[in-house]
Amino acid sequence: MAKHPPHKKRRAPHKDSVVVIGLGRFGRALALELIDEDTEVLGIDEDAEVVQSLSGSLTHVVRADSTKEDAMRQLAVHEFDRAVVAIGTDLEASILTASLLISFGIQHVWAKAISEAHGRILSQLGVQHVVYPEHDMGQRVAHLVRGRMLDYIEFEDDFAMVKTTPPADVIGLPLGSSAVRTRHHVTVVAIKRPGEGFTYATAETVVESDDTIIVAGRTRATERFSELQ
Amino acid sequence: MAKHPPHKKRRAPHKDSVVVIGLGRFGRALALELIDEDTEVLGIDEDAEVVQSLSGSLTHVVRADSTKEDAMRQLAVHEFDRAVVAIGTDLEASILTASLLISFGIQHVWAKAISEAHGRILSQLGVQHVVYPEHDMGQRVAHLVRGRMLDYIEFEDDFAMVKTTPPADVIGLPLGSSAVRTRHHVTVVAIKRPGEGFTYATAETVVESDDTIIVAGRTRATERFSELQ
Amino acid sequence: MAKHPPHKKRRAPHKDSVVVIGLGRFGRALALELIDEDTEVLGIDEDAEVVQSLSGSLTHVVRADSTKEDAMRQLAVHEFDRAVVAIGTDLEASILTASLLISFGIQHVWAKAISEAHGRILSQLGVQHVVYPEHDMGQRVAHLVRGRMLDYIEFEDDFAMVKTTPPADVIGLPLGSSAVRTRHHVTVVAIKRPGEGFTYATAETVVESDDTIIVAGRTRATERFSELQ
Amino acid sequence: MAKHPPHKKRRAPHKDSVVVIGLGRFGRALALELIDEDTEVLGIDEDAEVVQSLSGSLTHVVRADSTKEDAMRQLAVHEFDRAVVAIGTDLEASILTASLLISFGIQHVWAKAISEAHGRILSQLGVQHVVYPEHDMGQRVAHLVRGRMLDYIEFEDDFAMVKTTPPADVIGLPLGSSAVRTRHHVTVVAIKRPGEGFTYATAETVVESDDTIIVAGRTRATERFSELQ
Amino acid sequence: MAKHPPHKKRRAPHKDSVVVIGLGRFGRALALELIDEDTEVLGIDEDAEVVQSLSGSLTHVVRADSTKEDAMRQLAVHEFDRAVVAIGTDLEASILTASLLISFGIQHVWAKAISEAHGRILSQLGVQHVVYPEHDMGQRVAHLVRGRMLDYIEFEDDFAMVKTTPPADVIGLPLGSSAVRTRHHVTVVAIKRPGEGFTYATAETVVESDDTIIVAGRTRATERFSELQ
Amino acid sequence: MAKHPPHKKRRAPHKDSVVVIGLGRFGRALALELIDEDTEVLGIDEDAEVVQSLSGSLTHVVRADSTKEDAMRQLAVHEFDRAVVAIGTDLEASILTASLLISFGIQHVWAKAISEAHGRILSQLGVQHVVYPEHDMGQRVAHLVRGRMLDYIEFEDDFAMVKTTPPADVIGLPLGSSAVRTRHHVTVVAIKRPGEGFTYATAETVVESDDTIIVAGRTRATERFSELQ
Amino acid sequence: MAKHPPHKKRRAPHKDSVVVIGLGRFGRALALELIDEDTEVLGIDEDAEVVQSLSGSLTHVVRADSTKEDAMRQLAVHEFDRAVVAIGTDLEASILTASLLISFGIQHVWAKAISEAHGRILSQLGVQHVVYPEHDMGQRVAHLVRGRMLDYIEFEDDFAMVKTTPPADVIGLPLGSSAVRTRHHVTVVAIKRPGEGFTYATAETVVESDDTIIVAGRTRATERFSELQ
Amino acid sequence: MAKHPPHKKRRAPHKDSVVVIGLGRFGRALALELIDEDTEVLGIDEDAEVVQSLSGSLTHVVRADSTKEDAMRQLAVHEFDRAVVAIGTDLEASILTASLLISFGIQHVWAKAISEAHGRILSQLGVQHVVYPEHDMGQRVAHLVRGRMLDYIEFEDDFAMVKTTPPADVIGLPLGSSAVRTRHHVTVVAIKRPGEGFTYATAETVVESDDTIIVAGRTRATERFSELQ
Repeated sequence: MAKHPPHKKRRAPHKDSVVVIGLGRFGRALALELIDEDTEVLGIDEDAEVVQSLSGSLTHVVRADSTKEDAMRQLAVHEFDRAVVAIGTDLEASILTASLLISFGIQHVWAKAISEAHGRILSQLGVQHVVYPEHDMGQRVAHLVRGRMLDYIEFEDDFAMVKTTPPADVIGLPLGSSAVRTRHHVTVVAIKRPGEGFTYATAETVVESDDTIIVAGRTRATERFSELQ
Repeated sequence: MAKHPPHKKRRAPHKDSVVVIGLGRFGRALALELIDEDTEVLGIDEDAEVVQSLSGSLTHVVRADSTKEDAMRQLAVHEFDRAVVAIGTDLEASILTASLLISFGIQHVWAKAISEAHGRILSQLGVQHVVYPEHDMGQRVAHLVRGRMLDYIEFEDDFAMVKTTPPADVIGLPLGSSAVRTRHHVTVVAIKRPGEGFTYATAETVVESDDTIIVAGRTRATERFSELQ
Repeated sequence: MAKHPPHKKRRAPHKDSVVVIGLGRFGRALALELIDEDTEVLGIDEDAEVVQSLSGSLTHVVRADSTKEDAMRQLAVHEFDRAVVAIGTDLEASILTASLLISFGIQHVWAKAISEAHGRILSQLGVQHVVYPEHDMGQRVAHLVRGRMLDYIEFEDDFAMVKTTPPADVIGLPLGSSAVRTRHHVTVVAIKRPGEGFTYATAETVVESDDTIIVAGRTRATERFSELQ
Repeated sequence: MAKHPPHKKRRAPHKDSVVVIGLGRFGRALALELIDEDTEVLGIDEDAEVVQSLSGSLTHVVRADSTKEDAMRQLAVHEFDRAVVAIGTDLEASILTASLLISFGIQHVWAKAISEAHGRILSQLGVQHVVYPEHDMGQRVAHLVRGRMLDYIEFEDDFAMVKTTPPADVIGLPLGSSAVRTRHHVTVVAIKRPGEGFTYATAETVVESDDTIIVAGRTRATERFSELQ
Repeated sequence: MAKHPPHKKRRAPHKDSVVVIGLGRFGRALALELIDEDTEVLGIDEDAEVVQSLSGSLTHVVRADSTKEDAMRQLAVHEFDRAVVAIGTDLEASILTASLLISFGIQHVWAKAISEAHGRILSQLGVQHVVYPEHDMGQRVAHLVRGRMLDYIEFEDDFAMVKTTPPADVIGLPLGSSAVRTRHHVTVVAIKRPGEGFTYATAETVVESDDTIIVAGRTRATERFSELQ
Repeated sequence: MAKHPPHKKRRAPHKDSVVVIGLGRFGRALALELIDEDTEVLGIDEDAEVVQSLSGSLTHVVRADSTKEDAMRQLAVHEFDRAVVAIGTDLEASILTASLLISFGIQHVWAKAISEAHGRILSQLGVQHVVYPEHDMGQRVAHLVRGRMLDYIEFEDDFAMVKTTPPADVIGLPLGSSAVRTRHHVTVVAIKRPGEGFTYATAETVVESDDTIIVAGRTRATERFSELQ
Repeated sequence: MAKHPPHKKRRAPHKDSVVVIGLGRFGRALALELIDEDTEVLGIDEDAEVVQSLSGSLTHVVRADSTKEDAMRQLAVHEFDRAVVAIGTDLEASILTASLLISFGIQHVWAKAISEAHGRILSQLGVQHVVYPEHDMGQRVAHLVRGRMLDYIEFEDDFAMVKTTPPADVIGLPLGSSAVRTRHHVTVVAIKRPGEGFTYATAETVVESDDTIIVAGRTRATERFSELQ
Repeated sequence: MAKHPPHKKRRAPHKDSVVVIGLGRFGRALALELIDEDTEVLGIDEDAEVVQSLSGSLTHVVRADSTKEDAMRQLAVHEFDRAVVAIGTDLEASILTASLLISFGIQHVWAKAISEAHGRILSQLGVQHVVYPEHDMGQRVAHLVRGRMLDYIEFEDDFAMVKTTPPADVIGLPLGSSAVRTRHHVTVVAIKRPGEGFTYATAETVVESDDTIIVAGRTRATERFSELQ
């Protein structure tokens, strides 16, 4: 037994894979993105139709009640290192499931919260990563509704990146000479020629009028920049 | 008053403000972010308690049935230029409302979709901007679950930005000398010293071991970079 | 394969047949009338009992969820040229189904609407022919409730046909001599002797007191004529 | 009776007006059409919102439970000569109401049926005029789905009228010389020039290629005629 | 065919038997009482458990939907001469079933009504015998609650029979001599000695103090008699 | 105070009146029959509409929850001597109410049972008089369905009274001479001439062919007698 | 009969075992405790999942409807001497079941009540032992919430036992010398050394500061004692 | 007053009182017991009727939604030191409320759990005292069902107290001489003479045959003792 530790071996594959519980919009997109990135995924949902529609797309996908300890142990959920509770709208099921994963001693638990109170409970239970999709996307889209930018993301308070079309005064010059930072307090991070993908910008990059650019800077500066024409 | 057509004047404030219909998680976060950015917001929801809880936070907030043309006209919704249908789970109400806004001729309509079919219908009705919060956040979180990065955003297919801790071989050198682009195929976009905010990186920036950095590059390259130690 | 394009051939039968989705009162009557007129019909409904009761009466009749793209493609619904959405009361299912048919590129889509808003959405989705059975029959029956006519139909605003009994002053004379057009501003289109079917009237036709006649003319003129005795 | 016939006088207005019970799609269209034709209408519905939305459009409109004898007598429903039971989907309410009207001795009762069994019960109760809107419209629309005609109505078994575009061989000749009856077994009843209304056709009428015509004849003959080009 | 009328023969057994539709409290008691009296009974109910519990007790007992013409014809219900609609609380099912039986031309139809309106509809449909168990038993029990009688039945307005204990002044004398009719305006119809059954009384019968008697007479007279001591 | 016991006086009116709880078909008929017989009735029901419709018909009628001790005491229900639990279909409410009345020490409690188990529970609680309207009427109607009798009542096992038309061999003779008892084992109890009420029969009564009679006897004998012609 | 008492023999095993009906929290804990004490238990519940989860833990566990006499007799419930009705929240099922057990003549019936009215009905039916878990535990926990004691139980009005830590003035002396009774009006019943179990105290027992003790006495005295330090 | 910070004073009363959330059977009994012991209680429930029925019995009783932070703060719940979550069956409300109390930093929180999973979640949230009324009472009653004892309580594993009648061999002797401990391995803790309360036993106490006694000892020993006669 000392030589062939079968238990450790058996745990190994789970160590590198992720269990995703709840396969609605959020969990499904998350699980499929993981699969795209060559990560093994055990998907669990209570709805047979949902499970059926994802069989073949995930490494394993099982219909089970994630609030039941026996069911989770049979699926070896307790042997995973990373788990995502992506249960959509059933607060009780979300909490029961998260509580179970924490009691299993799983190290990295992510959980989707649908309200502040839900998030507080998940944190009190011991969940380290609480995600608020509706809230975060609401904030992000607000900037698109408001301004002329094509995409927007805030990495931290008061530091954002914005995808936009270039204003007149940055066109035709190498970025190194266009004084974008001095005049607009943003820096051009990446550039996309029509029909091509994005690439990061350098001091030599010359922006053309039909390019798309990504600029970084303080939130207000990036917004103001995107409104220039 | 004879010289300045009063109708146009009356429309003016609406031109610059946004009507947000549906004040659940998504709509509420969106509306409050707009307010934070000094944009006027008319919030509409069917639930009196929701309306009550936001009164004082939005410019106007009204309880009304957004599927009824009369009710919407009384609130002058047809005079807005920008509208967001943030109705959460009621597919029928979302479609009826979006249909009405399109029939009003409102130029910029954003709508949240909860499924592909929902999104297709919204597009067929004439909605230009369809948002999938659950789906998009699911994809984004997948990268955080999988890797060691602190935050992740994909601006376009295969061009991502990642917040991470710096690996050993970029520490202590000016970025211009560290050959990050050559070796790791990413570029360091911004840097954050402990206790400070983010600022964009230059060739002279020297990364320290307890800094946080944002790097840009192809999706796989940014991920691989975040796994270095 | 070059000579006998199999795909085109396979589509051929569907070109001449009709898919009817929703087999309640309206869809059922429509489908059976098509069968009577030797048109092939694929009937689809979600209710097993409804499907069972029509098996044998339609060319094909299948239980399926018409809001699901996979299910519709398996039934080759996307290869039809003519489709009718006859879904009764479930607004959401009606819209999801119509959206799918439009996305398939089906040329002639008919859909039943249960309200003005429903009709507007169907039109915005791209449905060319929207039908309002309850509304149209309500208008038609109003004329029967009000007057003495036996049947009534308005082909266009202000041009109606009315089935009625002949008034005294058109009886016993050839229609050519009875001056019906001059005096009553209607024309006698068809006549039915007791125990026979309708036939169209000519100038030589002599109307008897127990005949039934159909007259055409402006709406008010036909109504006034039907009240003569 | 010559001097003060108070009872008759009181009944007189009701004699000429119609009570319409149930103000859904069918009842509403029926009632509004009657109003358009200067017939007084007492509308009754259980739904306060429905009643509210029609107040001002009908002569009288009242919220009441039409299955309760007391409520109906208070509204003098028993003094009407003509009543329409337009109750939509509630079989029980429809039957209770119709039973009450028959027990009042009202002479002309119309009722909408939603199924054959419903229609049979209404007839057994003593209702003279039973209408099947969904069924009848289904049959009518079948002909439009199937053929090239613009509108279609069957007045009796095997005698229909069809609105269509004229085929080549009837264009340019006076109808009297075009032998339409001989060759196509239909008769041209009415004609509509572009931009004008319909008027009935005579032997001298010359049909142009952009006219719309209504032809009468046996069902199959009218259909075949509409398919000519 | 003239010699062996098979159809008539096949109908014969049904002629003497009864179909009972609805096997709740009322229908079940009715059906079992018929069986006790050697009448064949076909019992029909929608509830599998109810049918199961009576199998073995009735001649035939079947689970079927009595509102469906096909189902009823398959059970040959249209060939019976006597039918009872004992459907408990579902007004709609009761009416649909009764309507079907009447349309079959069944001669003797009994139906239980749960309200006046229900009873009126059944009568209008053509049901000859309408029964109101709750109402009739309510009236009957009222007399027992009020007075000292042991049982009470009113055969017609103002003619009742009452089971009671004998008052002092009829005890010990032959009934012919006790002047019961003269003094109390009732007649003693039957008498029951302790431990025996009832038998009808004659002029010679002597009533003892521990007998039970049945008296007939006008309602008030029987009540007053039962209160004597 | 010793001389005029106020409590007893206060109870007096209740002693002679009846409280009826539950005013559906059974309770309503029972209460109205008591009122007809000049007995005071306190009616109690949970349904405001029911209470409203009987106000004016009963001595007192109140909306109250009969399962709540406080509510019942406020209505002085505990001071009545006679109570009827006529609650229709809510087993729990029936049992809670009956339990309360028994705990009040009310002497005469009647209760309607809807099943054997319900009846057993009521008896175990201490209710002396349990009534089964549906069951008893089912048995009674069985005899009418089966035979030719006009009405039927069984007073005790095997002793019934039947209303019927007289057979040929009892017509035209004084009853004393017609040997009805000898030949048919029944006795003629009452007789009704056309247009008159019932009166009891004597030996001198001569039955005519258009009379209606009531006969008493053993169940089978009365049935057989009613089938004679 | 004296020699072969087969009936008695067959009853024997049931005499020593207990039937527990309802296997929720209360019934389950009760049944498992009985099993622990080597008592045979027949568990009955309506929920298949509950039955499944206890199979193997109880002597017998069966899914059945305990309100149905047939089902109970098939399980020989009527032959048991001791039964517990542990039905959780369904008042009606609890009463129907208890009524059945009483009608079987079972000698010792325990039943859980969820309200005073429920308890009163169970007593009226004849249940000897009525238990109120929520109520009793509420009272018991109140003392723990209020004071410093570790556990508390009241055996009878005003006589309680309390588990607590010893106050200073009883430590270090033999109990016989510590005058606990005199000063605190309680007696030390049992004592527990750290890491050992409880044992009863004697006059020689010396209490140490880290012991836990149980004292008995009047309610207030025990409470006051537990608050000493 | 100026010297003594008013906030502390304001908190003082709350320090000594208890907030009880949820006033069903458990919470109500707990709250009333606290009141009996002169502890102030703030009772909170969502049901207006429940609140109404306890007004007057508790110090304060309020209708509020305990899952809402605002509502709880307005009632100063965050200033209490002791709180009981006695919410009956709504798992979600129980967890939301407990989470809120923990986030307030309340020191002593008691909560009722209805299942193991519920209890685990409450503990993970930080609740120190979790109570299982149904489970604990189930265990306790098991001993009463099984044996002859009158009451039973287990203070710790394998140490119980039992109320029972005395067996023959302890009657008539002073306890000091009866060798109860030696022979039965239990000790007599308290004794109750007929008509008196319990008092603790001493070595001189003589047990009579109609006394009730409480004995302490190992679980099995107390049970065996209670079965002696």
